[in-house]
Parts: sequence; C-alpha cells; structure tokens
Amino acid sequence: MTYYYFGGKPLIAFEEALRLLLESAHPIVRTETVPLERASRRIVAEDVRALQDIPSHPRSAMDGYAVRSQDIQDAAPNKPVPLIVQGALFAGADPSVIRLEPNKAVRIATGAPLPDGADTVIPFEEVVVEDHRILVSKPLPVGKNITEKGADVTAGSVVLRGGADLSPARLAVAAGLGRDRLQVYAKPRVAIVSSGEEIQRPGEPLRPGQVYDMNSFSLMGLVANHGGDPVLMPNAPDTEEGLTDALDCSISECDVVVFSAGSSVGERDLMPKILSRRGEVLFHGVAIRPGRPTLAAVVNDRLVINLPGFPTSCLMVAYVLLVPVLRKIARLPQWQPRSVPAILDQDVTSPNGLRQFLSVRLIGERATVAYKESTTITSLTEADGYIDIPAATTFLPAGEPVSVILFD
Amino acid sequence: MTYYYFGGKPLIAFEEALRLLLESAHPIVRTETVPLERASRRIVAEDVRALQDIPSHPRSAMDGYAVRSQDIQDAAPNKPVPLIVQGALFAGADPSVIRLEPNKAVRIATGAPLPDGADTVIPFEEVVVEDHRILVSKPLPVGKNITEKGADVTAGSVVLRGGADLSPARLAVAAGLGRDRLQVYAKPRVAIVSSGEEIQRPGEPLRPGQVYDMNSFSLMGLVANHGGDPVLMPNAPDTEEGLTDALDCSISECDVVVFSAGSSVGERDLMPKILSRRGEVLFHGVAIRPGRPTLAAVVNDRLVINLPGFPTSCLMVAYVLLVPVLRKIARLPQWQPRSVPAILDQDVTSPNGLRQFLSVRLIGERATVAYKESTTITSLTEADGYIDIPAATTFLPAGEPVSVILFD
Repeated sequence: MTYYYFGGKPLIAFEEALRLLLESAHPIVRTETVPLERASRRIVAEDVRALQDIPSHPRSAMDGYAVRSQDIQDAAPNKPVPLIVQGALFAGADPSVIRLEPNKAVRIATGAPLPDGADTVIPFEEVVVEDHRILVSKPLPVGKNITEKGADVTAGSVVLRGGADLSPARLAVAAGLGRDRLQVYAKPRVAIVSSGEEIQRPGEPLRPGQVYDMNSFSLMGLVANHGGDPVLMPNAPDTEEGLTDALDCSISECDVVVFSAGSSVGERDLMPKILSRRGEVLFHGVAIRPGRPTLAAVVNDRLVINLPGFPTSCLMVAYVLLVPVLRKIARLPQWQPRSVPAILDQDVTSPNGLRQFLSVRLIGERATVAYKESTTITSLTEADGYIDIPAATTFLPAGEPVSVILFD
Repeated sequence: MTYYYFGGKPLIAFEEALRLLLESAHPIVRTETVPLERASRRIVAEDVRALQDIPSHPRSAMDGYAVRSQDIQDAAPNKPVPLIVQGALFAGADPSVIRLEPNKAVRIATGAPLPDGADTVIPFEEVVVEDHRILVSKPLPVGKNITEKGADVTAGSVVLRGGADLSPARLAVAAGLGRDRLQVYAKPRVAIVSSGEEIQRPGEPLRPGQVYDMNSFSLMGLVANHGGDPVLMPNAPDTEEGLTDALDCSISECDVVVFSAGSSVGERDLMPKILSRRGEVLFHGVAIRPGRPTLAAVVNDRLVINLPGFPTSCLMVAYVLLVPVLRKIARLPQWQPRSVPAILDQDVTSPNGLRQFLSVRLIGERATVAYKESTTITSLTEADGYIDIPAATTFLPAGEPVSVILFD
C-alpha cells in the first residue's frame, strides 16, 4: 500500500469522504405547493388523505341488470321471474335519475352507480332478454357483483404518504382524490460557482489565455437530473475576497454550494483557508483518481463541495460524490445507474491506494479508456461510463471482464 | 389458442400493433434554439463545430519550466546548464505577458499556455532549483511535454453530431466550444384528452355520478418523463360533435393525440367512426390485457391513440404502446426500464391468446398481484411494476420466478 498525502495531511478513503458528506446532508424540509400538472417527479410533503369514500356510491362490478334480491328469491330454471327493464345506467351516470321500482330491472354497465332500490346485479349472460323484460332463473344474494361505497378508499384514510415520489401512477391517484395541487418538497437550490479569471462564460469572446467555463454547465445538467435546482452564480475571481464573497452569497441563497476551480491553480488555491474560516472543513484530499484535491466543508449548516477544475475530473467526482449527497437532500431514492458488462481492450494501471473511476467508451462489448491527458473535449464526448477500480488494484490486463457504470 | 374478436374484427397481436404505430411515428423535425443552461436532456439538432482550435495556443502538459530546446542541447549531469527563471505562467494566464528570453526559463503550470519563444517543457522533478535559476542536466527535444494547438479539437471539426442527447458531459462540451445556445429538436407536443361528461377535473366539486379525471394526470407525467411536452386539452363531451371538435383542435396544435375514454362507455364509443372519417385507422382491438379496445389512427400525418378509460388499464397500455412511440418521435433512445427478479406469490391465470401485462407489487423478493377489480386507486398506489406474460401462457403457479419490469 502506497500512502498519499495532500496539503501535509493523509488522504481519506472514498467511502469515508462519502460517509462524512452524507452525515452532513440533511433532507430538505422546505416545501412549496405546486399545481398537479407540474408535480411530476416531485416528492410529496404531506400525507394525502381521501376526503370522501371511493367509490362514493355503490357501483356495479359487471355489465348486467341491477335488481332487488327479494324480487327474484323464488326464481328457478323451471319458474323464471320476469322483470320489466326500466332504464339504463352507464358508468358515471347520475344514479338519482332512476329509482328501481319493485319487480323491475335497470340495465347497468360495469362501474356505473347502483340505482336506489337495487341491491344486487345479475350479469348479462345469466338472463334471457325478451323485448322490454328479462327472465331471471336463479336467485342472487344481496350485494352480489357490487362494489360497495368506500371499497377502494375510505374517507379520511391516507392514500399517499409524505415522501412518496410522484410517478405517473401517483399523479393519477392524487387526481382521483380530487387534488389539483399538492404540497411537495422544494428542490434543493445548488449554487454553482466557477472560479478563476481565466474562465469565460460561453457566448462571450475569449481573451488570450482564457478558456470557456465547462464545469458550470455539466454541473447544472447533473444537478437538474438528480432533483436539484441549479443556480448559476457569477464566476468568482480567484482572490481571497472574490471567493469569500462568492461563498457568502451562495450560502445565503442556496442549500448546497459547489465550487469548481477553473483550472489547476497550484499555490493560488485559497478555498481551504476560506472554508476553515467560515465553517468546518470535513475533508481535504480524498484517495481517489481523479479528484484527489476534493475539499468539503459545512458552512452555516450547508454543504460546500469544492470539485477539481479539470472538466473530466470535475464531472467524474460530481457523479460519485455530489449525486449521492444531492439525492439525499432532495429526498430521492439512491441513484441506481445502469451498468453493462464489457471487456477491457487495453492494459490499465491504477495507483495503489487510490480508488480510480476510469471513464471509458463502449465500442460494442469492448471498453476502451476515454480519458486522454490533453483531449478534454474529446474525452468528454466519447465517455459512455466508468469503471470503478478498487484502491488496492494496481493493474487490469487487456481482456479483463469489467462492469461499466453508465453515465445518465 | 382461443381467438378473440373486437367489433367483429380479429384482434391484432401486440407486436403488430407496436410495429404499426412505430411505422407511422416520424422523428420530429421541428427545432428551436435554447440557452445552454436549459438544454439538459434535449436532443441537438445541428452539427456543432469548433470555431477555433482547442487549445487555441500550445500549452504545458506538466508542472515544470518552459525553455528553449536549443539552450539545453549540451546539458549533461556533469555539465548542467543554468537558466535564469524569468517569471511564471499559471493555467489560463495570458501568454503575451511573457516572452521567453534566451538562456532563461519560465515556470509553468499544467495547462498554462506556452510563452512565445519556448518550445519544450522540463518537469519540476528533472531540474535542480537554485535561488532564481534552475540547473538542467539533460537535453529535451522540441515539443516535449507540450500539448499542441488544436490537439484536442481542430477548428471546423464537428464535435457534437445532430441527434446527440445533451448529457452533462455534452453540455460541458458545448460550453467548451463557446456555445451559449444550441439548436435542439422541439419536444413533441402531446395532446391529452379525456372524454365523458362524468369526468370532472380535480379541484372542482363532483356532481353525483361524476368521478375525477385520473388519466390526464398519469399521462401528463408519463409524457413528460419520456421527452414529450404534454398539452392538457379540455375534457371532451362524449358526443360525436364533442369528440370531433376535440380531435380537430388537438390535431391542429399537437404532434400526437392521446384520447382516454373517461370510463367503459359501452355502445356510446364513437371514436372508431370519427377516426375513420378523419383519417386512417391503424388498428382497433389488440390481443392484450388490459387494453383490448385500444384504437389507433393516423389523422393529418399525426398519430392518434385512444387508450382504455379504466385508469390502471390506461396507464399500463401507455407504458407499453405510447412510450416507445413517443420516444421515437422525440428522438430519444429506446426506453430501457430496470427489471428485477422476483418470485410470484400466488397462482396467476392468463387468457390464452392475450399477452398480459400484469401489474404487481414487490414485497422484498415476492411479487404479488397489485390489480384488484374494484380498487383502482389502491392498485395504482401499490404497483411497482409489471410482469409480461406471453399470449400462449395460460398459467403461472405460485413460486414461479418472474422478471418484474419497474415503472419509472
């Protein structure tokens, strides 16, 4: 085992970094009320109760005839009971339009409300239809083929529990209870700050030496995909004052703050100092590749994560450390990325003591290393997923079967 | 094999229904321009080219010293060449601020632009640092440890192809090219129409016999989850005129039209007649359960799908028939729902000749049938996924291992 150090302190293991982050990540408590048509995929923040019985009226479970059980109690094959057909009720009909008279029947569709006076339903196939009457040749007990009032849901019962995510089925359920708006948990606001004066926003011209800010945009996409509300902050100048202002402003507006260094700024890295002054540093230096200099702190009860500046590293670390934390805060279930089996098509060495997340491209069933030092953009366009290489593994030979965890 | 008929015609197989729908589903060609920060998960509709070389200037691939190769060509361990350190360049620095003078060196960070005059980079660990100078003890060829201009991307090359989906990585790439807006394919507008006067919108009071419209809300969620832009149309009265107006209005505004009957309306079902008058009916009656009466047509080159009215049936058929079609129109890759293995905890009979999509609830590793006739809302809240039972299978015994396809 090789030991790695960062800033004079030992690196902490990936699992420990994730544990520390999750420990400080508190599920959001702020709520908001949204119209049902915009509630898809949100998380319900109330126990949703039925205000009335469903069905609110007994209804037929069959296509047939609604009758009075006592009228047909003596029916037999050799002594059929004739009943006059008095009318018909379709699903959703107003049952008050018909009241079943003695020795009569009402034609009724599946789901239609039972007319007053009826207490049982004879299926179509069990009667003989003759002009405007039917012949019934066997008795039926009270309540047969009827869905009772409240059989689905009783008034006052909790139908959706707080914490449920609003899948298409649950949206239908809320609608079925008559709810046109729901209280849901707010999406955690995630401040995204890129630092460094060399970083320029896309759409603006580049001055010599400048590069376009890529990290803010990958992070905005990732945050939105995992339940967060990304808030793009102005780029921060890479000075103590500039970074402190950006931190204070982000903390005052957002639930989580994600910094990404514009580039490897070497000795100009001021964030550890600023964060330890404003709050508590959770860790600085993680035994992972990429992402060794990753830094995290808690400031005013909010998580601040400083990701590496190199775009492929920033995104990779965001997948493995930011996504689990964000999903916990957003109250989403753990992410279950798809993974596919593949065969490594080249030898891969991995530093002893660092857990490596190696981005790869899939070509058929072959996984080929996507990351090449000097080809940031090409690496990003080509990577389909990554291989998770344990810290103790130092070599994977070409031909090794691997599991590729797919990016979303 | 049992044969099933609907409206006098043979039912068509599920595979055939899906094939007919997909054949008439044309990937959308309408485009729109969106700001990059709102482009997540959209589909690029242009070939995105690099406007300049990236990097736009040669840069260092190492932390070290930028020097002139000819100045150190005679360096040797016993005859080290001293070079005065003239300054430093960080990543993103403007290289025009320093011009390398003969027999000098510029300290340089990984990613920093090479100063004019320099043609090679000596890594830190290969020099001895002495006050304001370094001692170099071996020669280095021109171009060593340098990333050449255009090494990542050359000006004019296509970096993102039309049709690519904007993952976090691809958003970063577009940003890296300086793009602050992108042309993307429009989301297909999907009209959602519930029919039947017994259907009431949530939020409004129910009159006797009315029920709340559940299908519009499950369909809106499902459509949004699979790349569509759901457009909630007014509920259509269940009359020939009302349904025709709803169809015409939906066709004029949307790319796809989804009707769901408010309930099982029996002989009042007018849609087959209206659709065959306005366009071409693709099929009416599919050998599936639920969803036998599913109807589809092409009207003015737009797909119209009439789903069953019963909420659990409507949603189930939407998952298996609408989602694949919508994703094709939206240019999304095929849906790959997660599935989990489970053990069926009760006997299940399935009609011979009908492919059954049976919604189930997962309790640990047990799959239990979620659907119960009279408990629509309970069935919807409890279902985690479904089992796909082939048309020829008539019985699955308790204890049978099954694959449960999870709802999203």
